Amino acid sequence: KKYGHVIGHFMLLVFQDFELAAIYVSDAQYNRNIYFDTSPQAVRLYLLYHHWILKVLLYFFIVLNLSLAIFEEPAVLPLPTWATMLVELFCLLAFTLRMGHYAKVIPRDKFWKDPKNLCIIATLVLTLTDMVIYGALKAADCYGVRWSRVLRPLLLINVTEGRQLRRAFRSIRNALPQIFYVFLLFMFSILLFSLMALKLLGKRDLKTIYGKPYFTNYMDIVFDLYVLVTTANSPDVMMPAYNANVGFAIFFILYILINTYIFMSVFLAVVYNNYKKYLKEEVRQLVRAKRHKMVRAFAVLQEQREEGGQPVVTRNNWNQLIPLVQPNLCSARRQLIWSVCDDKNQGFLDKVAFIQLADLLNIEVIALKPRSHPFLNLFPNFYQSAPSRFVCKVVQHRGFVIAFDLIILVNTVFIGLDEKNPLISNSEWVFLTLYLLEILLKLYVFEPRAFFSRHNFWNCRQILDIVFILRVLRLVRVVDNIQRFRTIINTLIRIGPAIFTFGQLIVVVYYIFAMLGMEIFKNKVKFYDDSSDPDKQYCGNPLLKGTAFANLNYCKNNFNNVVSSFVLLVELTVVNQCSGFVTVTNVSARIFFVIFHITVVIIIINIFVAFVLEAFFLEYSDLQTSLEKKIEELNLAMEQERLDNSLVNAMETMDNNLGTEESPTPSRSSMVFKISSKRYRTVDALLQRIFEADLAPEDLPENDEAEAQNTGSFSNPTFGSGPA
Amino acid sequence: KKYGHVIGHFMLLVFQDFELAAIYVSDAQYNRNIYFDTSPQAVRLYLLYHHWILKVLLYFFIVLNLSLAIFEEPAVLPLPTWATMLVELFCLLAFTLRMGHYAKVIPRDKFWKDPKNLCIIATLVLTLTDMVIYGALKAADCYGVRWSRVLRPLLLINVTEGRQLRRAFRSIRNALPQIFYVFLLFMFSILLFSLMALKLLGKRDLKTIYGKPYFTNYMDIVFDLYVLVTTANSPDVMMPAYNANVGFAIFFILYILINTYIFMSVFLAVVYNNYKKYLKEEVRQLVRAKRHKMVRAFAVLQEQREEGGQPVVTRNNWNQLIPLVQPNLCSARRQLIWSVCDDKNQGFLDKVAFIQLADLLNIEVIALKPRSHPFLNLFPNFYQSAPSRFVCKVVQHRGFVIAFDLIILVNTVFIGLDEKNPLISNSEWVFLTLYLLEILLKLYVFEPRAFFSRHNFWNCRQILDIVFILRVLRLVRVVDNIQRFRTIINTLIRIGPAIFTFGQLIVVVYYIFAMLGMEIFKNKVKFYDDSSDPDKQYCGNPLLKGTAFANLNYCKNNFNNVVSSFVLLVELTVVNQCSGFVTVTNVSARIFFVIFHITVVIIIINIFVAFVLEAFFLEYSDLQTSLEKKIEELNLAMEQERLDNSLVNAMETMDNNLGTEESPTPSRSSMVFKISSKRYRTVDALLQRIFEADLAPEDLPENDEAEAQNTGSFSNPTFGSGPA
Repeated sequence: KKYGHVIGHFMLLVFQDFELAAIYVSDAQYNRNIYFDTSPQAVRLYLLYHHWILKVLLYFFIVLNLSLAIFEEPAVLPLPTWATMLVELFCLLAFTLRMGHYAKVIPRDKFWKDPKNLCIIATLVLTLTDMVIYGALKAADCYGVRWSRVLRPLLLINVTEGRQLRRAFRSIRNALPQIFYVFLLFMFSILLFSLMALKLLGKRDLKTIYGKPYFTNYMDIVFDLYVLVTTANSPDVMMPAYNANVGFAIFFILYILINTYIFMSVFLAVVYNNYKKYLKEEVRQLVRAKRHKMVRAFAVLQEQREEGGQPVVTRNNWNQLIPLVQPNLCSARRQLIWSVCDDKNQGFLDKVAFIQLADLLNIEVIALKPRSHPFLNLFPNFYQSAPSRFVCKVVQHRGFVIAFDLIILVNTVFIGLDEKNPLISNSEWVFLTLYLLEILLKLYVFEPRAFFSRHNFWNCRQILDIVFILRVLRLVRVVDNIQRFRTIINTLIRIGPAIFTFGQLIVVVYYIFAMLGMEIFKNKVKFYDDSSDPDKQYCGNPLLKGTAFANLNYCKNNFNNVVSSFVLLVELTVVNQCSGFVTVTNVSARIFFVIFHITVVIIIINIFVAFVLEAFFLEYSDLQTSLEKKIEELNLAMEQERLDNSLVNAMETMDNNLGTEESPTPSRSSMVFKISSKRYRTVDALLQRIFEADLAPEDLPENDEAEAQNTGSFSNPTFGSGPA
Repeated sequence: KKYGHVIGHFMLLVFQDFELAAIYVSDAQYNRNIYFDTSPQAVRLYLLYHHWILKVLLYFFIVLNLSLAIFEEPAVLPLPTWATMLVELFCLLAFTLRMGHYAKVIPRDKFWKDPKNLCIIATLVLTLTDMVIYGALKAADCYGVRWSRVLRPLLLINVTEGRQLRRAFRSIRNALPQIFYVFLLFMFSILLFSLMALKLLGKRDLKTIYGKPYFTNYMDIVFDLYVLVTTANSPDVMMPAYNANVGFAIFFILYILINTYIFMSVFLAVVYNNYKKYLKEEVRQLVRAKRHKMVRAFAVLQEQREEGGQPVVTRNNWNQLIPLVQPNLCSARRQLIWSVCDDKNQGFLDKVAFIQLADLLNIEVIALKPRSHPFLNLFPNFYQSAPSRFVCKVVQHRGFVIAFDLIILVNTVFIGLDEKNPLISNSEWVFLTLYLLEILLKLYVFEPRAFFSRHNFWNCRQILDIVFILRVLRLVRVVDNIQRFRTIINTLIRIGPAIFTFGQLIVVVYYIFAMLGMEIFKNKVKFYDDSSDPDKQYCGNPLLKGTAFANLNYCKNNFNNVVSSFVLLVELTVVNQCSGFVTVTNVSARIFFVIFHITVVIIIINIFVAFVLEAFFLEYSDLQTSLEKKIEELNLAMEQERLDNSLVNAMETMDNNLGTEESPTPSRSSMVFKISSKRYRTVDALLQRIFEADLAPEDLPENDEAEAQNTGSFSNPTFGSGPA
């Protein structure tokens, strides 16, 4: 009866079923949250939608669309208006096609309920309208503003792939109310201090070094004290009062203590607290959605082993599923993943074991086949002779690494010295020869494929060293060899992908402010290489005569094109040097700079700091995900068998890497595994790991069964929604 | 038999026993960790040692000793050398006497094992030696340096009462190794970027705006880039390269991203992580030491109720103990504390219940006797008439508070306006009359003693408002009335005492750097009110001609006396404007400023930020200590009985305060309690509360029994030791 049942079930599982299950698994693996039709046609369209070429094309058009600002008035490289508008039309067409494709994949009602689709459509319509109006105005020789350029970054946020970016914006949006209350208190404090400053200093007829009256206008004081919080005008704003009387320093010290130190810490605390709170909730939903998808894949593949027993996935179905999910997975790795899932060696997986698959596929494991060195096959006698074995021993020795670290250090000192000295410039050839020798020796000792396939960044870097001129970067390798610095460098590398998300966030915000800034300030401040011409003095604007802005030669910090705008915005992020722009326009221009400061410094930078802090606390607490723990355990059990494998041991010693993993097949195949990507993780995996301790108890897959049944809630609304 | 035992035991408990137990309890209450002899004479000396007059005197001499810097060369107010040295001798004498007193209190071997005593003795001896040498040199008209002035702040750290400060220094010392490794990486990154900058920009013959060669000397580049991390020279250092080619901006943006944003966050993360880790351990030891002391007090007072039963403390002994611990505790509060301890109403306390006493005494509870208003007794008919009751109703209404908040706001606007306008200056009298009216009305409605005794800051502030001129501070009251801001303001007030500790820390570090700075830089930069005299231009130093330091008129930022040194050090904390001092001395002066930046900005400010963050997370998570919870529970049980008390209810509604607590005596005495000091806590209580969640499981008093037996480990070595 049981056999027949299984046969009967097998008949039902056609190729489409495996394909569907594979899609669910890879959606879970990459945390994609799209609710698609399960008809074969929709599934094919869905697969096409996720094809990497289409994604690359999409991002190409997004970047193209954003970079049009370089060619549009005010331009870095001017192009005629018709040319940029033609390119923009192409971009709009590409976005429309992509949108149309998406509409075909997901059910119609879902499509229209998703705010991010509506946001893209609105952006497209508004941009088209603006282009028509602008074209008409240009044709009639009227002044027009391309206001829809501000909307361009919205496309970057709202495309399906911008999940990380949307999450960052949601974090910000959720933290806003709390930040707002602190900001009110902070502004209240500034207003109060300004009032005190006005009463204290306003009537003393003090002058600034530029001879202007000091602290007489309330709004000027408020702005000056706001800028003091950014430390941009730190001693300057205090000097006239301090010169008049030492006692006034107390006022400023109190102000700096309260507003710069305490309030800025409070902002960080509030942003951090809220960021963490909402992110935890989002990751919780992310994990839940991932498990739902795995439950769905399980439902497609499941079989009943016994009458009334738990449904399971057999090894057979598993073997058909995996090649569809990851075609390039070697059989040994498939074996490894299976034995991690099926840790009781039952020959089948229940639901809980199956659900781990998505996370397991994300752990990058590298198969090391301890092939024998080609020389050993070609010239066995020579390669095993005493001198050859001595060379192998030397190269595998820790001293070999240290020796070349020292050579790199000496080389760096030589780089720092005067290059005109022929001795020094010739020494570079000696160093190059030494590096080449190092590589050749390593290739002689280590099996070449093992040498290159180990995702070992430094081995490839080494080749590049010789080719490229980034010679000083060799030093980084030396630091990486020192164990003490590993924790720090690991964290820095780990937050890499997250920095990329923050980079996009910053680009979105900078782009909007650059577009606005260019409309407000363009050509008010000009930069000339040669300022001897009287027209070209004071950055070409007589209003700047005698100001610090012109005196310090800040003329190139302007909004005259998108590149210098971006550079200026970076400078404004570091310190708020905006007095020049207030001089050339009017006092209300300060609003632009204050809003920029609040958005970027108080909110985004603090979220960034919060993220770095969290990543570091994680690294110091050194949590392992439960799956990594499992692999580690399996590894320890195999430790004894591994000891005879000298090649791997040598590599281990040399690289201070994590434990290796022998394939647990009974035949003791000579395959060795190691977890490669402790360093190179996805942002999702990092986030999930940060909050895993809090997630575990409530999110057992058993709990999901009930929720998985009402598939309506499957496409998680929080993840479908873009920022309002 | 049982009766006889109790009687027999009573005979043994003489007054000295209660006195000893009381000392243990108050040591536990105030977290004092001194191991004293238990002989009656030593106990009396110990009590004297903790007398508040002696403590005030000690701090008076410490402050006097530190403030001698004002009168010593280079002086703010010059005094002859013999005068300052005489005062210093007096101070040294006072410290020696205090030390001698301490030596009498604790056993001799403990005294010589305690590093903080050795540190004080060494400081005293070195200071005396220095004074003799300096006096001899002065007498021989030689040049002498009073180098021992640097040691003066050590006294502040090492006196018995400097516990908080020592703990802060220990936190720093423990975090140092981790910080050091990050700092090495950070310096490595700066050195690497400097090398790249040298190769990239060194040979392009660029000039700074002062016409000096730009980025040609490696050490200059390193220093400039270090200062860039502090954002002090933010656009300036980049401008020459940026003016030459836009592409160089990428180098600087990358530099700022990595070193200013990422590395500074990493410093914060490392400092935060270590600070928290070590502080948790210290608080754990603190709590353990506190419980040990309570166990000792229990051991003195305990009786055996039954043969073989648990030893307990009877109500009788308790009643004799409490007046010795806190003489001014009213009987109702004593009753409250007893009923919180003896929550099962057994009439005696076991060890676990007794141990709570120390924490319970720290919770400030205010007794509110709902006395009837004196007018009600004097003119009952008038006070209960319809108009009078209407007035009461109006004043108790929430609108009354809001109306006066609005009046304060209007008043503030008037203050901001021009005071010369007679209408506005006269309006101040109207406002004063209104505030007086408010106070009179409140006194009419609320019972006067209740009105003033409630530790209600604002009621006293209100009286002061009229007397003092800090009129704008009235606005703070308005903000405090808004519930939304309470969390933030509560935290800010709560971290107040901790800020005081950080203040001391900063004073210690600033004092040392000021002393050093005055020796190195005194009179190199001078400030003149009138700089028309050519001798007095460029801060009186021709080396400063044409530098930004002289141009921006920073001359008063100098090390010419201790006050301006302190102001300058604050400025250096905010932004590192030190180029002027490097110009007037030599390049190695940079080391002074870099060390100052590392000490103050990277370490101390980050610990401060970490503390603010932790305090905020606590406020947001809103933990209650277990004892507060108990009081709250008792309170809820009494809620029903309380409802008829209209006066208290009115007060409650008006002030949004915590619940009240009726005395749980069966006679329903008309006493009302409330927890008053949610805001005003000691640093120890705050710290204990931050880590209470982690402490609870391992530190049950039961565990302490074994440890309490070996009394040798009672005087906790960690708490006895000062910084090395």
